[in-house]
Amino acid sequence: MSRFSVTYSLAASSAQEARERAFDICVEQTVEFPYDLIAERWIRERLVGWVETVQRVGPGRYAAEVSYDEATTGGEATQFLNVLFGNTSIKPGIRVERITPSRGLLRALPGPRFGVRGFRGVTGVRRRPLLCSALKPMGLSARALAELAYRFARGGIDLIKDDHGLADQAFSPFEERIRRCAEAVRRANRETGGACLYVPNVSADAPQTLLRARTARHVGAGAVLLSAALTGFATMREVARDDRVALPVFFHPAFAGSFTASPTSGISHAALYGQLARLFGADASIFPSFGGRFAFTRDECRSIAEGCRLSMRAIKPCLPAPGGGMRFETVPQMVAFYGPDTIFLIGGGLFRYSPDITKACRDLRAAVQEAAAARRLR
Amino acid sequence: MSRFSVTYSLAASSAQEARERAFDICVEQTVEFPYDLIAERWIRERLVGWVETVQRVGPGRYAAEVSYDEATTGGEATQFLNVLFGNTSIKPGIRVERITPSRGLLRALPGPRFGVRGFRGVTGVRRRPLLCSALKPMGLSARALAELAYRFARGGIDLIKDDHGLADQAFSPFEERIRRCAEAVRRANRETGGACLYVPNVSADAPQTLLRARTARHVGAGAVLLSAALTGFATMREVARDDRVALPVFFHPAFAGSFTASPTSGISHAALYGQLARLFGADASIFPSFGGRFAFTRDECRSIAEGCRLSMRAIKPCLPAPGGGMRFETVPQMVAFYGPDTIFLIGGGLFRYSPDITKACRDLRAAVQEAAAARRLR
Repeated sequence: MSRFSVTYSLAASSAQEARERAFDICVEQTVEFPYDLIAERWIRERLVGWVETVQRVGPGRYAAEVSYDEATTGGEATQFLNVLFGNTSIKPGIRVERITPSRGLLRALPGPRFGVRGFRGVTGVRRRPLLCSALKPMGLSARALAELAYRFARGGIDLIKDDHGLADQAFSPFEERIRRCAEAVRRANRETGGACLYVPNVSADAPQTLLRARTARHVGAGAVLLSAALTGFATMREVARDDRVALPVFFHPAFAGSFTASPTSGISHAALYGQLARLFGADASIFPSFGGRFAFTRDECRSIAEGCRLSMRAIKPCLPAPGGGMRFETVPQMVAFYGPDTIFLIGGGLFRYSPDITKACRDLRAAVQEAAAARRLR
Repeated sequence: MSRFSVTYSLAASSAQEARERAFDICVEQTVEFPYDLIAERWIRERLVGWVETVQRVGPGRYAAEVSYDEATTGGEATQFLNVLFGNTSIKPGIRVERITPSRGLLRALPGPRFGVRGFRGVTGVRRRPLLCSALKPMGLSARALAELAYRFARGGIDLIKDDHGLADQAFSPFEERIRRCAEAVRRANRETGGACLYVPNVSADAPQTLLRARTARHVGAGAVLLSAALTGFATMREVARDDRVALPVFFHPAFAGSFTASPTSGISHAALYGQLARLFGADASIFPSFGGRFAFTRDECRSIAEGCRLSMRAIKPCLPAPGGGMRFETVPQMVAFYGPDTIFLIGGGLFRYSPDITKACRDLRAAVQEAAAARRLR
């Protein structure tokens, strides 16, 4: 059995105290039992986590790398999350900064099915950034949402997602919506020769999520969207692995914000929106970009993009999907910042730009193409 | 359709700004679309949340009650969580303080199956606080854990739970463990005439959790334990509602700590460990008590107990299950603080007290009975 490791940052007034707090994590996340009362030597020596390194990273803050025997997870994804941060999430001043998976962990957490290259293959877009818009507002009928999807697709948007608030409400029932929207996008694709994908939100009560994802595949959706903090991370993994779904998966950050609300506790932006989203099967990770109505900084957004792309054994990279910060005037800046392997989300900005939404999409796509080309020439 | 409401606390420098931020929540949690661009009047007037009240609660902090049309949830529990705090969880300085469910919401969220009275009925304990201990450390064989369960049960402990880190590891596979432990507790009950319940941890990857809960019922477990933040809250609800399980449900706080890590964001202790745990079906809610190795304050713990008990329409109250702060010397204080309708968790403290664990359990039970009797006489 090999060991995976987790780097925690923690508050401590000295290296010695940091080491003691790191050892507390080793015990809390595994045996949760007074260490000196453990009779079995192999439990003390192998199952209890190991403090690998402790380093000072700032005033009163230390980074501690702790390794765990894979056996603690039983090869299960949910139990991996529990070992990662179960009880320690309740202790003050401790934050998950980075995850280093072991090879054996990849059986439970194989990562994205498509990854960046596979996702591009599905969309037929080889080099430029991808564009995604959202069907909203909640309250529109399935018919009205489908009409909107048609107009987006006619304008050359690559991906059209349900707003994450569209579930199975009376005004737009799930099945009717996804049938109509998938059909509207197909119709537009026939007319334009394009390959726009419809991405319905399948987040639902267990065990409905998987069934909705299968229905989405059946009616011709091109990908699916899940709010994994709402459904449980393992539900996203289940959808990503399911051969009857076999579609790219978008991670949505709804209900996940509390994990990154504090710089000294929770989970780092890179580990949550990048590494964990990927480990649990996301091909694309949506997060609120700097420059929009949320408060993530440029550094936090950069770290998320890095978390989506950094090397993690055989786990494919995924596409960062920043949303909320995209307006026509910020396109060159955003393209330069995130690079080409990115999905740009734009919703409200399109509607603000023009009442002719098809024209707005066309102009946006032209602006992104221009920005991407200019960047390649430099 | 009636409306449910949520009280958020938020940072603002004036009542006017607080009102504006509250209105932002109304939009973000529903339509997520520029309000002035919404053409349909019924969406603006009914689906977008309503700011009901705004009150100053401290320097720079306001409490805003926002009501939502039940129709936004589509009658689904996961979508209710999304409306409650989906995207707003990502905005800084906003915290869910209290939930006021509407009648229609109770179809999706009927609450605990047993509640306090039903749970007492199952245990046969009418008035005194209940005692629960935990099987650990991780790494023991199923046989060794069963032997420990037998000794706890012989000592008169009412409930014996798996440590939440026991999943389906090679050293103690799920099915073997729960068969052996359930049998050991039955054997002790036959010998003592007691009614001790075994409470296995069924948290697992979707859709394994429900299957494990059914297996637990099948082999004679008396209740089940779930870490809802790990499995997804809706998975706990699914287990609680399942007629083939039909056992009391323990909520465990693993991975939930980030929600309460900050006093100005996330979800309040009362709303998370009290109201949400109950709404999603918990008959007992485990949380780390003041006085232990975690950092919840007395006020936070009191608010959790209140959240477990406060009136929420037809939703039954549940039992607060404080853990981590119980030692022999603190028994009278803990009983006085939490009152009789409480499950006291004690793990490490029992082992520290005596190597004869059956005697430790007997002495603990006597101490609790004495403290509860003294309290009734006062």
